[in-house]
Amino acid sequence: MSFFPPSLETLIDKFASLPGIGKKSAQRLAFHILSLPEGEAESFAAAILDAKTSVHCCPVCQNLTDGDVCSICGDARRDRSIICVVAEPRDVLSFERSREYKGLYHVLHGVMSPMNHIGPDDLKISELIARVAEGEVREVVMATNPDIEGDTTAMYISRLIKPFNIKVTRLAYGIPVGSNLEYADDATLTRALEGRREM
Amino acid sequence: MSFFPPSLETLIDKFASLPGIGKKSAQRLAFHILSLPEGEAESFAAAILDAKTSVHCCPVCQNLTDGDVCSICGDARRDRSIICVVAEPRDVLSFERSREYKGLYHVLHGVMSPMNHIGPDDLKISELIARVAEGEVREVVMATNPDIEGDTTAMYISRLIKPFNIKVTRLAYGIPVGSNLEYADDATLTRALEGRREM
Repeated sequence: MSFFPPSLETLIDKFASLPGIGKKSAQRLAFHILSLPEGEAESFAAAILDAKTSVHCCPVCQNLTDGDVCSICGDARRDRSIICVVAEPRDVLSFERSREYKGLYHVLHGVMSPMNHIGPDDLKISELIARVAEGEVREVVMATNPDIEGDTTAMYISRLIKPFNIKVTRLAYGIPVGSNLEYADDATLTRALEGRREM
Repeated sequence: MSFFPPSLETLIDKFASLPGIGKKSAQRLAFHILSLPEGEAESFAAAILDAKTSVHCCPVCQNLTDGDVCSICGDARRDRSIICVVAEPRDVLSFERSREYKGLYHVLHGVMSPMNHIGPDDLKISELIARVAEGEVREVVMATNPDIEGDTTAMYISRLIKPFNIKVTRLAYGIPVGSNLEYADDATLTRALEGRREM
């Protein structure tokens, strides 16, 4: 049943396709777009296109950037001997917010998940191994989520790195097991970093 | 503090400006946009522009449409002697879903709200009076939300219509007082329509 003009239905469907947005919320958002001044709606659409075209992965750490390398890899003050391996770009934000970590990152863009047919080759693992092989790195902190898929991915990668004779550590379980890095508070993340242990 | 590329920050801010979307949700939505295939992100942006440019108010009932008149006003099978007056376009959808109402609508695009400086002149009230003055209408059902602002608006409009010697009714309070039309179930809306009474 469609009671709205087709172009409005299309916009509602687009919003409803976003994660965590249901049909009712999508309607509310679409009506909000219609109520915006003309220029505001245009700049919303432009922001989508702009982000999509200008944002790409940093060739070093695979974090999102719109420059040649990301601002963290390009920062000469960061400790280049330690790499923190995270699953998603938003996890970098969580660590940066805690202001305790001064090393570099590596973003895997996912975790191994046989249920969803995501294997090691679908992640940025070979890029991590290449960085480790360059010889400057002394420690790799595995900071994937403390759940089954995150643990499996951390274990898999740690076995690949061990032959390089480099310390591989895992975040301390200051983070409640089964929860999500994205929602950890700064103090918990800081303690988890301090208590990291060799794996 | 900004750890994301500026174009990504802009997109996050745009999502966060939508009603009911917080900073964390906005990040999630923006990352989702980045993960979409190129064409999908473009069609999302196009849907925003398309809806914004092609959707306008029906000149008869002020509901949203992309044609000359809306599909309800243009439907010869609808009963033209009765007008259901609602505050928002989404309220039309609520009534259409109940499939009980066969008359026409009039969308006010808001309710009178002194707190927010919205007076009668900010609503599509004069357009409603013009329709009533044409003489074809026998009944006007006031279907604004059953709260203070909705009641005030209904009362104000009913006084303007009374001189035309036309029946003005109000939805029965089958709808829980203080709640919102948008969330009423079909059965409740049907009973509210059946029990409408003259005001």
